[in-house]
Amino acid sequence: MIITHISDPTDPRLDDFRDLKHSDNRPDLPGGKGLVIAEGPLIVERLLASRYPVRTLVGFPAKLDKFLSQPHIADLAAGIDTYSLDRETLAQVAGYDMHRGLLAAANRAPELGLSEVIKTATTVVVLEGVGDHENIGSIFRNAAGLGVDAILFGNGCADPLYRRSVRVSMGHVLRLPHASFEGKHTNWHYGLDQLKESGFQLVSLTPHEDAVPLDQALYDGNGVPYEKIALLVGAEGPGLTERTMRRTDIRARIPMSAGTDSLNVATAAAIALYERQRGRMPHGE
Amino acid sequence: MIITHISDPTDPRLDDFRDLKHSDNRPDLPGGKGLVIAEGPLIVERLLASRYPVRTLVGFPAKLDKFLSQPHIADLAAGIDTYSLDRETLAQVAGYDMHRGLLAAANRAPELGLSEVIKTATTVVVLEGVGDHENIGSIFRNAAGLGVDAILFGNGCADPLYRRSVRVSMGHVLRLPHASFEGKHTNWHYGLDQLKESGFQLVSLTPHEDAVPLDQALYDGNGVPYEKIALLVGAEGPGLTERTMRRTDIRARIPMSAGTDSLNVATAAAIALYERQRGRMPHGE
Repeated sequence: MIITHISDPTDPRLDDFRDLKHSDNRPDLPGGKGLVIAEGPLIVERLLASRYPVRTLVGFPAKLDKFLSQPHIADLAAGIDTYSLDRETLAQVAGYDMHRGLLAAANRAPELGLSEVIKTATTVVVLEGVGDHENIGSIFRNAAGLGVDAILFGNGCADPLYRRSVRVSMGHVLRLPHASFEGKHTNWHYGLDQLKESGFQLVSLTPHEDAVPLDQALYDGNGVPYEKIALLVGAEGPGLTERTMRRTDIRARIPMSAGTDSLNVATAAAIALYERQRGRMPHGE
Repeated sequence: MIITHISDPTDPRLDDFRDLKHSDNRPDLPGGKGLVIAEGPLIVERLLASRYPVRTLVGFPAKLDKFLSQPHIADLAAGIDTYSLDRETLAQVAGYDMHRGLLAAANRAPELGLSEVIKTATTVVVLEGVGDHENIGSIFRNAAGLGVDAILFGNGCADPLYRRSVRVSMGHVLRLPHASFEGKHTNWHYGLDQLKESGFQLVSLTPHEDAVPLDQALYDGNGVPYEKIALLVGAEGPGLTERTMRRTDIRARIPMSAGTDSLNVATAAAIALYERQRGRMPHGE
């Protein structure tokens, strides 16, 4: 493996990592979505193992050596343009001090289709209006740990492949299948009908006190967990729109203390997904 | 109520809010702990209603007027030094652009004692080594919503009254009782014995696969929830120390998908607290 050392921060071979704080959402690239950037060994490894084609790998000399000394990683990184650079150089290129000293950039891969990602899925999460990149990242991280097969994007959500989402998700946005519903405004609701036709029970998560407690809502009349569940969650604050909730089979809530605020959307989703895991794995096994 | 307008950013009456990004942990004050700073209407209201004595209230003119036009808030703010100032002035004082335009500063109140906060408590959370201010804030927010009576600090935790913790907690660090165990290193473990003597079942939350699933660990042999539970959680990454876990009655885990990372500490605590709520309120009522 050939590693070229670069000491000139203006070298165009480092352009993938230029001014990351301001430009990682690059509208100049095809699709207007920019590159996928991974930071740190754990997430860079997950990017290398993902379906996103890695273009460039850079790092401090010692960090790169250590990372690439692992045979399975050297295999994944074979043929990728790899450059070593000093901490000061990287800071000048990226615009911030990247103390973890390892970065990779990949092209976006074609988006997966809805039918494809739900084909064998039994638990999916549907997001509406979740515009915060960190919340998107946290939802992927929690979903990956709690048995979710796919994340589906309704209207008004932030880009899951934005650098901050990738980081907060611990790289799980690169691993957990996701797809977007087609259509804006309420047109994406036709995709909810597709979920119903595929046998999913549609559950809206809401703090409203008239909703059914989670430990009932996820089970049929005999207390048996539904075979397929789509859990819908909305943005912190506004929550799911009424029009969307009307399309679902049931509204579920987390029992909360009186007079408190609703939970963060990623935390609320994690609790619902825990209840789903609990019901499907008696005594957690 | 007299509101004085200040246009000079060097006015010493604004010193409580000076350079907040770098100095809100002020060792020059008695106790070396600095002031308690609240940002935005929701959290400022919670600070005014708390046991922390508010010293100063500042805001943009329109924000202050709107805030103080609420009679219950005007009552709480009576007699407090209140200054209006423009956005640019506040930005120069605080060192960042505070777009919510309302800030309050309070002195620290004497810490509560352990015996006092556990006296009538039935669910408490014990933290060990949780050094991240945002995680501390999230834990308070989740605990407030999910029926916790007190938070107890073991060794190596961050300051819950730091500005960022206050903000992330939505002000719940100002409302939910908390106390610190006495003693550093492992000496604080004597406090765990005090919890046991007070009838608490001590539950360590850990991702270890030999631990007992949560929906068993929080219940006695007959499936009845323990009357009093102390849930112990450790920092993300290292988790609870082995020495601490040995002092507890049981080790509990959240059933997770194979090959994934552990959850964020505040998320894991929220899930355990949901299970606690669920068990105590059949069908969530």
